[in-house]
Amino acid sequence: MTEQVLEATEAMVVVMEERATESQIEQVVARLVEMGMDVHRSTGVTRTVLGAVGQGHPDKGILELLDGVHEVLRISEPYKLASRTFKPEGTVVSAGDARIGGDEVIVMAGPCSAESEPQVRAAAAAVRRAGAKILRGGAFKPRSSPYSFQGLGEEGLRLLRDAANAENLKLVTEVMDLSQIEVIDEYCDIFQVGARNMQNFTLLRELGHARKPVLVKRGISATIEEWLLSAEYVLSGGNNDVILCERGIRTFETATRNTFDISAIPVVKKLSHLPIVADPSHGAGRRDMVAPMARAAVAAGADGLIIEVHCDPDHALSDGAQSMYPAQFDRLMAELRIIAPAIGRSICLEPVTRRGWGS
Amino acid sequence: MTEQVLEATEAMVVVMEERATESQIEQVVARLVEMGMDVHRSTGVTRTVLGAVGQGHPDKGILELLDGVHEVLRISEPYKLASRTFKPEGTVVSAGDARIGGDEVIVMAGPCSAESEPQVRAAAAAVRRAGAKILRGGAFKPRSSPYSFQGLGEEGLRLLRDAANAENLKLVTEVMDLSQIEVIDEYCDIFQVGARNMQNFTLLRELGHARKPVLVKRGISATIEEWLLSAEYVLSGGNNDVILCERGIRTFETATRNTFDISAIPVVKKLSHLPIVADPSHGAGRRDMVAPMARAAVAAGADGLIIEVHCDPDHALSDGAQSMYPAQFDRLMAELRIIAPAIGRSICLEPVTRRGWGS
Amino acid sequence: MTEQVLEATEAMVVVMEERATESQIEQVVARLVEMGMDVHRSTGVTRTVLGAVGQGHPDKGILELLDGVHEVLRISEPYKLASRTFKPEGTVVSAGDARIGGDEVIVMAGPCSAESEPQVRAAAAAVRRAGAKILRGGAFKPRSSPYSFQGLGEEGLRLLRDAANAENLKLVTEVMDLSQIEVIDEYCDIFQVGARNMQNFTLLRELGHARKPVLVKRGISATIEEWLLSAEYVLSGGNNDVILCERGIRTFETATRNTFDISAIPVVKKLSHLPIVADPSHGAGRRDMVAPMARAAVAAGADGLIIEVHCDPDHALSDGAQSMYPAQFDRLMAELRIIAPAIGRSICLEPVTRRGWGS
Amino acid sequence: MTEQVLEATEAMVVVMEERATESQIEQVVARLVEMGMDVHRSTGVTRTVLGAVGQGHPDKGILELLDGVHEVLRISEPYKLASRTFKPEGTVVSAGDARIGGDEVIVMAGPCSAESEPQVRAAAAAVRRAGAKILRGGAFKPRSSPYSFQGLGEEGLRLLRDAANAENLKLVTEVMDLSQIEVIDEYCDIFQVGARNMQNFTLLRELGHARKPVLVKRGISATIEEWLLSAEYVLSGGNNDVILCERGIRTFETATRNTFDISAIPVVKKLSHLPIVADPSHGAGRRDMVAPMARAAVAAGADGLIIEVHCDPDHALSDGAQSMYPAQFDRLMAELRIIAPAIGRSICLEPVTRRGWGS
Repeated sequence: MTEQVLEATEAMVVVMEERATESQIEQVVARLVEMGMDVHRSTGVTRTVLGAVGQGHPDKGILELLDGVHEVLRISEPYKLASRTFKPEGTVVSAGDARIGGDEVIVMAGPCSAESEPQVRAAAAAVRRAGAKILRGGAFKPRSSPYSFQGLGEEGLRLLRDAANAENLKLVTEVMDLSQIEVIDEYCDIFQVGARNMQNFTLLRELGHARKPVLVKRGISATIEEWLLSAEYVLSGGNNDVILCERGIRTFETATRNTFDISAIPVVKKLSHLPIVADPSHGAGRRDMVAPMARAAVAAGADGLIIEVHCDPDHALSDGAQSMYPAQFDRLMAELRIIAPAIGRSICLEPVTRRGWGS
Repeated sequence: MTEQVLEATEAMVVVMEERATESQIEQVVARLVEMGMDVHRSTGVTRTVLGAVGQGHPDKGILELLDGVHEVLRISEPYKLASRTFKPEGTVVSAGDARIGGDEVIVMAGPCSAESEPQVRAAAAAVRRAGAKILRGGAFKPRSSPYSFQGLGEEGLRLLRDAANAENLKLVTEVMDLSQIEVIDEYCDIFQVGARNMQNFTLLRELGHARKPVLVKRGISATIEEWLLSAEYVLSGGNNDVILCERGIRTFETATRNTFDISAIPVVKKLSHLPIVADPSHGAGRRDMVAPMARAAVAAGADGLIIEVHCDPDHALSDGAQSMYPAQFDRLMAELRIIAPAIGRSICLEPVTRRGWGS
Repeated sequence: MTEQVLEATEAMVVVMEERATESQIEQVVARLVEMGMDVHRSTGVTRTVLGAVGQGHPDKGILELLDGVHEVLRISEPYKLASRTFKPEGTVVSAGDARIGGDEVIVMAGPCSAESEPQVRAAAAAVRRAGAKILRGGAFKPRSSPYSFQGLGEEGLRLLRDAANAENLKLVTEVMDLSQIEVIDEYCDIFQVGARNMQNFTLLRELGHARKPVLVKRGISATIEEWLLSAEYVLSGGNNDVILCERGIRTFETATRNTFDISAIPVVKKLSHLPIVADPSHGAGRRDMVAPMARAAVAAGADGLIIEVHCDPDHALSDGAQSMYPAQFDRLMAELRIIAPAIGRSICLEPVTRRGWGS
Repeated sequence: MTEQVLEATEAMVVVMEERATESQIEQVVARLVEMGMDVHRSTGVTRTVLGAVGQGHPDKGILELLDGVHEVLRISEPYKLASRTFKPEGTVVSAGDARIGGDEVIVMAGPCSAESEPQVRAAAAAVRRAGAKILRGGAFKPRSSPYSFQGLGEEGLRLLRDAANAENLKLVTEVMDLSQIEVIDEYCDIFQVGARNMQNFTLLRELGHARKPVLVKRGISATIEEWLLSAEYVLSGGNNDVILCERGIRTFETATRNTFDISAIPVVKKLSHLPIVADPSHGAGRRDMVAPMARAAVAAGADGLIIEVHCDPDHALSDGAQSMYPAQFDRLMAELRIIAPAIGRSICLEPVTRRGWGS
């Protein structure tokens, strides 16, 4: 499939300056043809505009520096497989019976890091009771400071897998480096690529060969276009099961750790066929902001949520401040069950089923 | 009341460098006392920390440049009257029977600008039918380009007032300059200060003497602290009826015109007692993004919405692309009626009442 | 002149979606013609591209929402009189014998605010001795907090004028509001529009009728395009003497108060014929950062500098932390005299002339 | 050394709310002690402030959520080995006879990617003639799109090394992944960590064990603090030879690809002892902006520059638009020789030596 896509049509418009000479225009046309493009020329009263279409790979920057060129506008999106133009209907990614991108809003929840067996088990049981379908939790932790807790490694993976199995949950966990793929693959159901690794192209390329879904978090300063290009790295390797995850961008505002970009949800829905979930825990950075952001994300059309829940967040080894207490999470799930139908969605387990489950 | 506030306590912490000398410490203490502060000194093993509390106005920047100073941290919020510390219970601002900040989510809607009598009348009738309580619309328009439509002026105000009266709506409209206050005061129920004027202090100060509520939009690059300080200008003049309005901030992302800062809603609720409404039309910049942003804002806890609605947006003289059609607005209102109860709120008129009203 | 400009040609490109139907294309063509544009149609293998040129005012946002439209690109710059396309040679703005935009780098310096006669006199003498040509200083001060020093008003203007006259300097001072133009006009040589007022269109429009140069500071979140549009407001009123001033933009970085956008200098030089000066005091926010930023600005091609100098900055009533001591300013001027020739510029008075002057 | 550092003192200030109760204060004190801190309590008229100093690792986020807490301020810098507090004198990093951080401004230049032997040789000769001391060039290229040229791999490394040897230059080249360290180590003199990998902690940690200098580029959205923490990862592994490189940050402005943060240069000089160089090619994104940014960086105090030069940039396989022609680079070097003495620096080869070389 990739090959077919690499031949996708590129399209560009080159706007000449008002006083561009005929020889300058001809030079630009020649360069475009050299770059493998067909050129259509429109001569207006004041300006000439050149439209270029073809299978070539024209370099926008070089064209902009040619004499007589006013502006160069790229028309085709740089991503192909991730685009809704390429695949108009929405993609549903399955992890067992959890279908992300379908009618149901899927909730993934659990601790930031695996710390101990009782901690992981308690969190898994709590989120399962409240209606989560997927357990989240980290064994390898990327930390800004070399002096912070870096995770339990494979022992953490084992704890998470056991807890997920005990509660009939699927498991999503972060992979930080090429060298971790193999071991994580033995334990997880969904690979998570963290925000700091969104442009670790070596890692993305390799995950394109994985046979499990990949959840790609948005980098804190990534444009939506760059994010979709990172998804493209995975898709172009042959792995069609990509889930996008909005988790907040960096702006001038310091009242919150990041600015949760709520509008990314409808924008991605328009540009791409891939499902998108929201991570209000990292988007908000503090526990009392998680519920409003989670409600907002579902109201805006998110296909799912990924939320940090910890039974004793005050003593968590990482991200304690943004982890919810189980009781807060229960209440949030109840609120979401009211909101989801407003946009034609359902959410997770019914309370009745839940009781049945526990008996 | 202002005088009382000016005497509010300021508090600061000055952290000395590890190798600060005794004479450097004494110099800083002397400067703090000169600035009107009481100083508490804590001598640690490695550093000395000075706490300063008082009625003075210490200059953080100057202290930072003194020899031996590592960092200066201001503790007290710079705004007083706008702070929830000052007034713990939430403020409800009334415009007639519309109570902004109470249990009901109040919707303000209408055209971007008043263009003609039929246009204003049709829009007012449409938003009234769907459940809006307040008509929005501009007569004086701030435009980035001097070559764009600048509004109808007083004639526009008259059209808006007449339409509001005909539909039993209140009216909110923008004031751009000191010189417009008097004429706008004859027509409006709520003064609106636009994002570009959020730091027009001359205007804000004068509106502190007005006897009508003032809706202060957040500037596109204003921090929440600066926004609350702008509210403080109005409050400190004696006008307690300030409504805040989030409408998107400027970030690196270009997929939307602005990034709607959804987290500002719970943050403001925590820091201030003032009501906050959301403007999803400007936050999104395009019609198909308005409904998701509006739903998200209500789900996050906004006290109200201000939305552009136009019966023929394709021919609007300004902001046509972000104005909703009446049918879209009806549908949005129906969705909001489902969402509001999730957070213990109600929204606008019941359809039955509405029919009764029209008869 | 304005009228001629209003008829300037607009140009746009409308890119249709790959699967746009013939009737969708025809509808877009019809709308463009209705908006006063001539349309050139290019039909490619996969897409149709429409070029539109004319005297009309097509609304990009509305076109984007029409069925079958993939993207709309505006080609013509929205500013006209400020563009280098309109006037290829650089503009030199004169304030007496100070020529901003010529070979000489012009330095404007002085205190943030006028506080007292001795303070203003001492600062004026100090900056004059070091080689400044223009005195800067404020009488009306915009302050984020209503509780800060707001300036001496007309008394401040008188102090500044007297000091400028005594030292044979020209005077630049800030105007915050329409109502202040008349009184400031009696004292100043150059009107300054502050960053917070960069989009106070009522003020800009009125300054278009002034007979003195206007220095327009860039708003902290203004794009270069918006800044040039603000200059356009002044130019379109008939006042050709506009000076642009870069003073830092707001970004995520908090280590400095603002991020001084050094690249704005060559970008503005390319897009516009107007002179550009730099304000390293506000760009940096602290005294020890002013000299590196000032040197960088001259090295990057700035036509001048505007710098805060105070003989006793520790006791300044505003901006003390970013005001240089006279000795620091002397040293900076010496450094700039080395740098300026690297880009073919000179800077200010020669020391010999200066001594002659004082005798 | 690391162990010693891990015991470095942490310091925090906890500001209680005005109405905090005695039991709330005691709870916070207890938590601080539990976290390993000594607590100093200052009771003011209106507020209580707690100063905490110790060897512990208190979690700011958790403290902020405790009842009665108004604000928590961290006083100590999170980085230790990178701090000027730790090592007051500036570090000089040597790569052969090129000393980065000394009196001489060191210029690194060459093509974006190695493409062919003639291309690399021509570029190396050109930059050597103009006065560069270090050859730059990539063999492994991180590209946003999976469809772009990804570099020649080891063959590229060989071409670069041969060209460097032929011209008596040192070589800096990018390492993208753990798995590439070994092969790159055979060819390079300095490892470069790209902006997208600035928080690839697995890679940074491993480079802490390398025996060659590491040049760490700033991520496009990294704060200066995060950047210094990334340097800390390398330093804490025992590698003291870290060079920082500013290359532009992402802001709202779109007129340039990135906003070159010129003020980062003096800020880093103040906070850290590590040398800092500037990359004006990536900072500017287009050839005609490189020279002004390079001049500005040296004027602001940069210890060096890293610049893309290509003998035929119009046909470069990557970054052609921002690569300088050799003649432009010659001219820039001549300008820099005038500027450097303004700040007490010299720059590269004398013209005499250069002629001797060519003969």
